[in-house]
Amino acid sequence: MTHTAELIAVGTELLLGSIANTDAQMISQALSALGINVYYHTVVGDNPARAKAAVEIAKRRADIIITTGGLGPTCDDLTKQVLAEAFGKKLVFHPESAKKMEAYFAAYLPHRTITENNYQQVMLPEGCTVLDNDWGTAPGCAFEAEGVTVIMLPGPPRECRAMLEHRVIPYLKGMSDGVIASRTVKLFGIGESSMEARLRERMASMTNPTMAPYAKEGECEVRITAKAPTSEQAQAMLDPVEEALRREFGDLVYGVDVPSLHARISALLREQGLTLSTAESCTGGLAAKRMTDLPGASQVFCGGVVCYTNQVKRDVLGVSQNTLDDFGAVSPQTAAELAQGVCRCTGSDIGLSFTGVAGPDPDEGKEVGLVYIGLAHGEQVWVKEVHLGTARDRVRNSAVLHGFDMVRRLLTGLDVV
Amino acid sequence: MTHTAELIAVGTELLLGSIANTDAQMISQALSALGINVYYHTVVGDNPARAKAAVEIAKRRADIIITTGGLGPTCDDLTKQVLAEAFGKKLVFHPESAKKMEAYFAAYLPHRTITENNYQQVMLPEGCTVLDNDWGTAPGCAFEAEGVTVIMLPGPPRECRAMLEHRVIPYLKGMSDGVIASRTVKLFGIGESSMEARLRERMASMTNPTMAPYAKEGECEVRITAKAPTSEQAQAMLDPVEEALRREFGDLVYGVDVPSLHARISALLREQGLTLSTAESCTGGLAAKRMTDLPGASQVFCGGVVCYTNQVKRDVLGVSQNTLDDFGAVSPQTAAELAQGVCRCTGSDIGLSFTGVAGPDPDEGKEVGLVYIGLAHGEQVWVKEVHLGTARDRVRNSAVLHGFDMVRRLLTGLDVV
Repeated sequence: MTHTAELIAVGTELLLGSIANTDAQMISQALSALGINVYYHTVVGDNPARAKAAVEIAKRRADIIITTGGLGPTCDDLTKQVLAEAFGKKLVFHPESAKKMEAYFAAYLPHRTITENNYQQVMLPEGCTVLDNDWGTAPGCAFEAEGVTVIMLPGPPRECRAMLEHRVIPYLKGMSDGVIASRTVKLFGIGESSMEARLRERMASMTNPTMAPYAKEGECEVRITAKAPTSEQAQAMLDPVEEALRREFGDLVYGVDVPSLHARISALLREQGLTLSTAESCTGGLAAKRMTDLPGASQVFCGGVVCYTNQVKRDVLGVSQNTLDDFGAVSPQTAAELAQGVCRCTGSDIGLSFTGVAGPDPDEGKEVGLVYIGLAHGEQVWVKEVHLGTARDRVRNSAVLHGFDMVRRLLTGLDVV
Repeated sequence: MTHTAELIAVGTELLLGSIANTDAQMISQALSALGINVYYHTVVGDNPARAKAAVEIAKRRADIIITTGGLGPTCDDLTKQVLAEAFGKKLVFHPESAKKMEAYFAAYLPHRTITENNYQQVMLPEGCTVLDNDWGTAPGCAFEAEGVTVIMLPGPPRECRAMLEHRVIPYLKGMSDGVIASRTVKLFGIGESSMEARLRERMASMTNPTMAPYAKEGECEVRITAKAPTSEQAQAMLDPVEEALRREFGDLVYGVDVPSLHARISALLREQGLTLSTAESCTGGLAAKRMTDLPGASQVFCGGVVCYTNQVKRDVLGVSQNTLDDFGAVSPQTAAELAQGVCRCTGSDIGLSFTGVAGPDPDEGKEVGLVYIGLAHGEQVWVKEVHLGTARDRVRNSAVLHGFDMVRRLLTGLDVV
């Protein structure tokens, strides 16, 4: 039997926009991995009547309700009362949880006195399974009633994450009858709608496995998902789908289950014992920033120069004054010399450079969105010219992705440009 | 009349946990500033029946429905169909939006062909107000029916944010019977809970104007909002509140209605005719990237060096080998020489440097989160030591903010450290 879950987050801070509902994201990921459908997320404030209304709706459309938030000691913390009432249960004092809470205060909050409010936290629905909270003071709980499984978790993301992993996933695994496996095939160099047009017929005819296309910030991906009695069987169902996507999109596929293009090239550089450096004019450090987002970057990334002025291009990176005079800073010639210069300067094996017009105004009479990307490796140098529109952020982001893709192509033996 | 809004996000990727519903957060903040109550957020997948059910529920409990997502060109993009159907409206071809889309493709995506799918995006509910999308291809729209105002926005956060600011807020302001004015007082150097503790009593006693504290990524802000018959009256109500906040927090206030600390220092540099450059080890280009996020950065920012290896620190930035040997790359001495070196190297007036341990692993026996920030100006040099926790992203982001704040303090005549 396939279960359907609904997540209800309780907290006025979410409705005021003080925080994003990241609890819902992490619980959804976990439920998807367990093969449990999630059809709705609801967020409601610290208001008993509206929270109760949300629970009444959820009861009709889900057989698992997971709440986050509202388990704390303040008068706003009403989740247990609301859920108990909605399912006709009483709240009863849970002495073991009270002892645990007292021990937690003694260990972590020795200067705080336990108030009467704190004891509210250990009033739990009668007959529930207590989900011990080793990461905070408010215990979670689970019960089944009226054909619905109800699970209540604390709101702070750190506590919620730990409770999810150590309490909820084991609890739910006991309820599931299959395993879901999924893979994400990542592409660069194709737009979302072209990708979808090429997949539409195939997608429409699929039920298990399924495929779903996504686009974000210049990259595309296709998620393929299969459900089967065992993990091995689910994985085996995914193999031919991945194969078909690789055939369809060829070298536009840069990886499967890779977080990003820069993670992919970092791995390739590491495998091949090579190092990269960057010379950035219009991208202003974005490529270096991405490369160093990843822990361990120092093994594959030597550094970079952000060369916003011609003086830096010339004096630090060795671009010749003649090149700057004859062709301009935004030129294939300058891109090539920047890529070679940054290799020299940092001692890296590969140099990647960006020079262009990020906007909003044209420069040197060159249009906004024109970027030259240089790639140097040993004696070889390539330059790619791209036209990336007029939105500054997008020009910079797309230029960096195009540059990383050139590195990827170089390191996987494809034509660079 | 006080309005009640409900946000409905449409997208299976939210239910799978691929992304968090950050659109809801930003819209909630904006609505809160406009004095519009938000009682529920709902997330539903790319499923017409379930999306319709969510809309039917929202119709009964809100008089403003704002949807995000599902406006794109793929077959999953069903929001307009669902809303039109729920309110008994037809979708009609909107020729002006089609022209805009064609122009957008010509300008930004010249190598892509417009597919039949793309034209789906310009089928809009009859009689709606089109909300032009200058940041993407799918227009938004708004209509009123059955006593409910419906607003549909694209899902990608970058587009949603721009549409919210430039299309939705002005539209909603027109629905209000008074004028709402708000200012955002920005702070650096105080934690959210300390800030809130210092404001709590005052906040509790206020109804118009109101103040609301927010924290994001290492910065804090207090939004103050007043409602009055005219803009002048609303602004006059805000003056004493701003004054009181400036008295309360002194030089922790770095600006009012300034988008960011880096925007503030860019403006100060421009006013004073000075230039900045950056030398970044652990921050890996993040400071340079931020400085160049802003158009016109080249007037105040010369460039930077990302010096991930000691070789780059020494050969490009002139840190002495003795300093590296005796004190290590993560040391106040290296920070000072990096800041001075990058000024020399780029010819800038001011040099800002970062060297530290971003993690996840300690380095040179130094703890994760330790960062030295150097600031050089003429003959003077300052170094600040900060301890920023253990989360890599947070260490890097906080370090950059601390560095920018040192520049701000220098340029406004405050003590730098």
